[in-house]
Amino acid sequence: MSGEMFGDEVDIKARLRAAEVMYKKFHRLISDVIKGRPPKLEIPKRTLSNTIFDPERGILVIGEEKLEREFLNVGESRRFMQTLLMASIIYQSLIENEYPTIRDLYYKGKHTIVYRDYTGRKREENTWDEQKESDSVIQDIEVYTGLFREDMLILSKEKGKVVGNMRIRSGGDVIDLSKLGHGAYAIEPTPDLIEFLDVDAEFVLVVEKDAVFQQLHRAGFWKKYKALLVTGSGQPDRATRRFVRRLHEELNLPVYIITDSDPYGWYIYSVYKVGSITLSYESERLATPKAKFLGVQMTDIFGYRGKKPYLSEAERKKFMIKATDKDVKRAKELLNYSWIGKNRRWNVEIRLFLKHLVKLEIEAIASKGLKFFAHQYIPEKIETGDWID
Amino acid sequence: MSGEMFGDEVDIKARLRAAEVMYKKFHRLISDVIKGRPPKLEIPKRTLSNTIFDPERGILVIGEEKLEREFLNVGESRRFMQTLLMASIIYQSLIENEYPTIRDLYYKGKHTIVYRDYTGRKREENTWDEQKESDSVIQDIEVYTGLFREDMLILSKEKGKVVGNMRIRSGGDVIDLSKLGHGAYAIEPTPDLIEFLDVDAEFVLVVEKDAVFQQLHRAGFWKKYKALLVTGSGQPDRATRRFVRRLHEELNLPVYIITDSDPYGWYIYSVYKVGSITLSYESERLATPKAKFLGVQMTDIFGYRGKKPYLSEAERKKFMIKATDKDVKRAKELLNYSWIGKNRRWNVEIRLFLKHLVKLEIEAIASKGLKFFAHQYIPEKIETGDWID
Repeated sequence: MSGEMFGDEVDIKARLRAAEVMYKKFHRLISDVIKGRPPKLEIPKRTLSNTIFDPERGILVIGEEKLEREFLNVGESRRFMQTLLMASIIYQSLIENEYPTIRDLYYKGKHTIVYRDYTGRKREENTWDEQKESDSVIQDIEVYTGLFREDMLILSKEKGKVVGNMRIRSGGDVIDLSKLGHGAYAIEPTPDLIEFLDVDAEFVLVVEKDAVFQQLHRAGFWKKYKALLVTGSGQPDRATRRFVRRLHEELNLPVYIITDSDPYGWYIYSVYKVGSITLSYESERLATPKAKFLGVQMTDIFGYRGKKPYLSEAERKKFMIKATDKDVKRAKELLNYSWIGKNRRWNVEIRLFLKHLVKLEIEAIASKGLKFFAHQYIPEKIETGDWID
Repeated sequence: MSGEMFGDEVDIKARLRAAEVMYKKFHRLISDVIKGRPPKLEIPKRTLSNTIFDPERGILVIGEEKLEREFLNVGESRRFMQTLLMASIIYQSLIENEYPTIRDLYYKGKHTIVYRDYTGRKREENTWDEQKESDSVIQDIEVYTGLFREDMLILSKEKGKVVGNMRIRSGGDVIDLSKLGHGAYAIEPTPDLIEFLDVDAEFVLVVEKDAVFQQLHRAGFWKKYKALLVTGSGQPDRATRRFVRRLHEELNLPVYIITDSDPYGWYIYSVYKVGSITLSYESERLATPKAKFLGVQMTDIFGYRGKKPYLSEAERKKFMIKATDKDVKRAKELLNYSWIGKNRRWNVEIRLFLKHLVKLEIEAIASKGLKFFAHQYIPEKIETGDWID
């Protein structure tokens, strides 16, 4: 069979690396058994209490607490066995050149074990019932091995796109991200396998919404202002976040983020910046703690002290949307996040929101004219440092 | 200002073309007024009763019925004015090199008209309240002018992706769709502006799900079988549908579609094939009536007469998901669509579904092994003609 069927060299190297780590990490269990010790896994806890905001690095990280999973413990043996089952499926996929998705892994492992209990009665037990269960096992394997699922060539649905003055290498091809016409480069599920070749850009601009990305792209924004233009199409997936983080870290580029001016948009910014709360162990590689919130800010709408608003009274009336109870609840939750609640400018933002109880979409700014949005609003805010850190 | 700020030459030409059509279509109203005739718009009706399935062409089309919108008619003047307001905003956007989205157009036109009625009382009237209203006006303008919103450089969120042995020209750039590494080409919002340069492919494979697209891409499917691989990430947007249609029509390539084996997946296939019911006027350019449903078929799961199932009894037990009441309702609705209800093989499919009351995801097939899925299931079905027309 041709080599193409097994993916390219980049993938093969990644497979070998991941398979080796998995082998080492799980081989210990065999030594345990041989030495007569009860086999046991020590896995960092993925609980909220073990999720810590590291102010120095500015990201959420997983703490020191670990849980033990023993085979010879009735309360833990099910999860112990699930973990080994999943690890063996992933390992098998690695060496057999498969590219499973997390949904595949759920299906691959799903079966019913029929056995007789100590009374001789026939019993049945499912390996897992729902994908939630198998996903959680994959997460355990990620924190246990220190490998991300992407490192294990587990693929997923991807929504991220990029254009800009940059060339990258992916899977053996060189792609010029400035030569994609009206289209864009759809970011791959394994962004760590991308090689950055050369770049002529001064900053990264991440826009929440794909339609706004299309507009800025078409208006030539990235060419004129030397930007790398990225969208995650709403709540960003892991690959988009990792890609943005790498642009920041390896190319030393500032990252500006534009979302709707509402608690949902602010949370999207927060996910890019510090990571998601439920999966803090990812943040170490996915978060971009220095990402700046460029807008749309409440102070862009209402002004604040010396700052002149970008919208007139009439435009405010025209564009603003009433906040819902859910928005208000969410805004108050955001204040509880220390990286927001303790930030003076975020306090101003959220106080303005709670005072006026209105929100605003990016499109409202763009509807004042794409020229205004692309060639005044954004560059002026970057120029004058009008962002929230 | 640099030319980049106004989009490329391709866009400028498209703008001029659309502006000219709009000018001609709406200029009539001025002649009406000059000649003392009450200004009136004749717009093809976008109602269900005026939606016809054309069996010859195999698509849904808009019928002959037209509605008249007169300015001097109390019941119609509001919509008449809305139509002219929207047309003028779109025209303005065209000549001012804007790239609005439908959301922008909603915002641009949204305002309150204050006036005094015949009794001298002050009254207020909003141009429109919700985007649903302004969207519907845009659709009227589409059917009235024969221009699609894409022709008028109205942009939108895009989800479609493509890879394969093909080169295209978009916005002045030449893009080689076979040199995108692990990533893909994100299809632009205006696919009619894409120029097909050269192609070395034998068919188009459309997969419903992005994650499955990623898997087949990574497994080198399109290289080995000379396919253009496309995904619309679920319910396809207009650009993806138009792109697929153009691949079929202009390159003469057969189009095979793979979705989940459930009523939702079947409907996605139906949208690619005949168009969506609510927007039948689009079908003339968006639908691909010869698109074939490759799978996942119920007969792939259960077999049928001479056909051997692809799944064993154990695999069926493992992979199948119980259908919900909503699924059943939807399946019965599908039988009412003549292009499904009158098709013998679709009848077999849906009867099997209603008999077993189970559904199956593409991932279940892929989890049998990507090699099985990519290098046996798909090519074998294409080879033996095991699809539904």
